[in-house]
Amino acid sequence: MPRTPIWKSIAESLGEDIARGRYRPGDKLPTEAALSARFGVNRHTVRHALSDLAERGIVRSRRGAGVFVQSAPVDYALGRRVRFHRNIRAGGRLPQKTVLRRETRPCDAAEAAALALAQGDPVIVYEGLSLSSDLPVALFVSVFPAARLPGLAQALEENTSVTEALKSAGIGDYIRAETRVSAERATATQALHLGLREGDPLLRTVSLNTTPEGVPIEHGLTWFAGDRITLTVTPD
Amino acid sequence: MPRTPIWKSIAESLGEDIARGRYRPGDKLPTEAALSARFGVNRHTVRHALSDLAERGIVRSRRGAGVFVQSAPVDYALGRRVRFHRNIRAGGRLPQKTVLRRETRPCDAAEAAALALAQGDPVIVYEGLSLSSDLPVALFVSVFPAARLPGLAQALEENTSVTEALKSAGIGDYIRAETRVSAERATATQALHLGLREGDPLLRTVSLNTTPEGVPIEHGLTWFAGDRITLTVTPD
Repeated sequence: MPRTPIWKSIAESLGEDIARGRYRPGDKLPTEAALSARFGVNRHTVRHALSDLAERGIVRSRRGAGVFVQSAPVDYALGRRVRFHRNIRAGGRLPQKTVLRRETRPCDAAEAAALALAQGDPVIVYEGLSLSSDLPVALFVSVFPAARLPGLAQALEENTSVTEALKSAGIGDYIRAETRVSAERATATQALHLGLREGDPLLRTVSLNTTPEGVPIEHGLTWFAGDRITLTVTPD
Repeated sequence: MPRTPIWKSIAESLGEDIARGRYRPGDKLPTEAALSARFGVNRHTVRHALSDLAERGIVRSRRGAGVFVQSAPVDYALGRRVRFHRNIRAGGRLPQKTVLRRETRPCDAAEAAALALAQGDPVIVYEGLSLSSDLPVALFVSVFPAARLPGLAQALEENTSVTEALKSAGIGDYIRAETRVSAERATATQALHLGLREGDPLLRTVSLNTTPEGVPIEHGLTWFAGDRITLTVTPD
């Protein structure tokens, strides 16, 4: 009777840990060194086990960051009033943001057109990385008309949720007026932020949010990791 | 004064032809041989001119098919009642379909769940390539519950428009109940059909269409060429 190779029994053991919820989707597995010690084998054998799990889509290696339990994609509703925090919470995950840039500057021609401003009017630019329970899921750049939203720059310093920050700037309600969705390859920089490989597919959305009266208050660009987010569209 | 290189003046001349509408988006340019003859230069020079146009996003080479004038992506509304033919016509293009498969067979468990059928119930499978004025834009597989739609198999033989075929099978109105959008890499087969390179980003939609009363009548999978289609979502 053929003996089960050691790498295979390690893969099975780790797979069972994952199936039983000891490591949950998005969790980082212990390092190769730690796993070598735990199973009493060399790193080569550990690597063989991990690559077997990766081939079966159970874990995913992110360059320089480690090996993570693969998540089923998170549903992300493109609803009129449903946005990042609510979407991620609806999937039972913790919404987080890493701010990459927050500045006020004059707008360019394209931003002026999108937000119904004059070119050069001040806009607040809010750029960052969205995470779902520590797993990066999207890069975003939002542009807000500063004069229409007094206090927003300050509010965004205190609250990473755009909905909450807008609320303290006097916008109690706003709607997604239009969203445009395309597919792109990740650039090297995007791949680095999102823990993907360069060229991996991204979902890119361009969206315009307005007050219920139709006044533009946010123009947003978002790049979602194609394997971690499924955008859903349902009639309101 | 430096002389303009010949390849460059050829690229400018072709660029002007395109700008003036002699070659329109989606059109195939003449072959390298024909362009060599027209400009009285060797093919190497023609290739240099074409690769300059390609780098500037004006044309795109499709392996084995030729060089085509690049189109701006076509907007494709994920509206409740807006579908392929209407979307492509709205962009001023001609909607076309190439049928790859049309068959009736027992449904599997996933199809049964999506369409509220019992496993093994007959479904009509309609698979093909959607084109917009000769440019391939999407691959689709639609599955219909055969017993609910008597006459549909026959109607799909006579009419490539699903909306029209459903009409002759007694479904005068139906709505897009849900659409799920993700990004994927094109497989070798998909790339071949769509004139893309393997690994190019695709927008994948999974959609469910129902009668206004909520009875499922079509479960569809579509892979859109990421650089040719922009999905748009607007509140109804």
